[in-house]
Amino acid sequence: MKEIKLFAPATVANVSCGFDVLGFCLEPIGDEMIIRKTDHPGVRITKIVGQDLPLVTKENVAGVAAEALLASLDTPYGFEIEIYKNIKAGSGIGSSAASSAGAVFGINELLGRPYTRKELIQFAMKGEELASGAIHADNVSPALLGGFTLVRCNKEVDVIALPTPSELYATIIHPQIELRTADSRSVLKKNIPLSKAIEQWGNLAALVSGLYTNDYALISRSLVDVIIEPERSPLIPFFNDLKDVALKAGALGSGISGSGPSIYALSRGEETAEKVREQMEKVFQPMNIKFNTYVSKINTEGIKIIE
Amino acid sequence: MKEIKLFAPATVANVSCGFDVLGFCLEPIGDEMIIRKTDHPGVRITKIVGQDLPLVTKENVAGVAAEALLASLDTPYGFEIEIYKNIKAGSGIGSSAASSAGAVFGINELLGRPYTRKELIQFAMKGEELASGAIHADNVSPALLGGFTLVRCNKEVDVIALPTPSELYATIIHPQIELRTADSRSVLKKNIPLSKAIEQWGNLAALVSGLYTNDYALISRSLVDVIIEPERSPLIPFFNDLKDVALKAGALGSGISGSGPSIYALSRGEETAEKVREQMEKVFQPMNIKFNTYVSKINTEGIKIIE
Repeated sequence: MKEIKLFAPATVANVSCGFDVLGFCLEPIGDEMIIRKTDHPGVRITKIVGQDLPLVTKENVAGVAAEALLASLDTPYGFEIEIYKNIKAGSGIGSSAASSAGAVFGINELLGRPYTRKELIQFAMKGEELASGAIHADNVSPALLGGFTLVRCNKEVDVIALPTPSELYATIIHPQIELRTADSRSVLKKNIPLSKAIEQWGNLAALVSGLYTNDYALISRSLVDVIIEPERSPLIPFFNDLKDVALKAGALGSGISGSGPSIYALSRGEETAEKVREQMEKVFQPMNIKFNTYVSKINTEGIKIIE
Repeated sequence: MKEIKLFAPATVANVSCGFDVLGFCLEPIGDEMIIRKTDHPGVRITKIVGQDLPLVTKENVAGVAAEALLASLDTPYGFEIEIYKNIKAGSGIGSSAASSAGAVFGINELLGRPYTRKELIQFAMKGEELASGAIHADNVSPALLGGFTLVRCNKEVDVIALPTPSELYATIIHPQIELRTADSRSVLKKNIPLSKAIEQWGNLAALVSGLYTNDYALISRSLVDVIIEPERSPLIPFFNDLKDVALKAGALGSGISGSGPSIYALSRGEETAEKVREQMEKVFQPMNIKFNTYVSKINTEGIKIIE
């Protein structure tokens, strides 16, 4: 095999109570990438369609991730990468993670799978580091593994695949304003009250339990963020209204996707998720803000080969 | 039925990463209580053996918990309570929780079970409030439900029974020094670094996952406390040595039980738990400190009727 075409899905990180550790994978939106094995060593980004992103390997998240992978192996081959971006940079649904994860997944396939999907996380994280200045695996993990993932420890790259209740659907609204991850990080306080941290970890632990037991009511009670959302949500226009209509339409929970500006909601069943979409759209329609919405089953497969 | 005799077990709260939310139930140590239904309304503590604790109902945790339960019901009956204390107050293995939980459990039985075990938590918490000045359900929940329990929210009394991997054994060492919960709370900082909180909730979420999947290695990696233990452990003589020998003897993890001074370790299998006990005892034997040790399977039953 000399060439591979793959689909690298968008992902939702943080998921309210799971700041920096939790994420899940989406189905209908993602980038496409073509990876080509060549006889010239090194990584070249040969084409980027749909976004104005750097072609220079060391400035491109896919390039950096790919080089990290290749540096760990003894291979005479080089790789060309074409990226067809459908996920906007700065949207909050894992745009850089999709490219980073896609690059290492594709190269790994073309080299006969020297690594498992889980082992690829450490290389994809190098792309994320370039994008945000911080090491974090909360988007690349669900992109590679699918479903819900938990990053126990970023430093040790200890990632756990969590179960996905089959009736869970996500609704995403992406207002087309750019919010850089670095800016979104800068509003966070370095210190937080212990009492709030206890609330947060009680909710996260309960959410994990709810995912194992298909307890949708418990999942709903646990999708609460008392630490990050109060700081970040003022950066997102109409956040409170959007969350409010989502919950009123029957969503189990709603919050900021990644570092925003996208907002996610989780619902039980597609019908409710569609109602949530409808109500969220109504909030934005009278405004002069462009937006996209998606309804998605949780994608339990992750990145996949399409050709 | 006019009279009941019950066993109210000791419990371990916090469990390293689960400060204020996690707990588990022990088997070999606990109080015995006799609860008697009478025709005189009200609650009387008629006997306390083994500890110097107040007989005045409103000053005794069992009395306060019992009154809270009775206040919620329309019953002509009153209750007498005898308490045979085997769990020392201030030991850190849920002494007040055993009495509080035992009282409400016994009365509930004698009244024909108007409440489930889970519903009794809210009343037992009232006793805990008297003991520590704070509302918390992390000891009364495992005492009532058995196994591992997670308190998602103390205010809403939202408690989840977690699964218990069958090979888990606890080792407890109780140095006979008194450490009041209130003192042990006062050393804690009101604010903590967000980065530490993220580590902590990553570990707690992973521990919950490990309990669901019987993943002992994951349980071991997750039994880490980067927030409370560094503050509290200096209050406990030889804490670092005890933890050290426990881990070297093969324990999956070790930390402060509740607010101390007891220290717990969790091991896979009874044999390892016994080795851990042996090594912990060796640390204390040359010192002039009295101590007790216990090895216990996780008690999945909780409080039980013995007569």
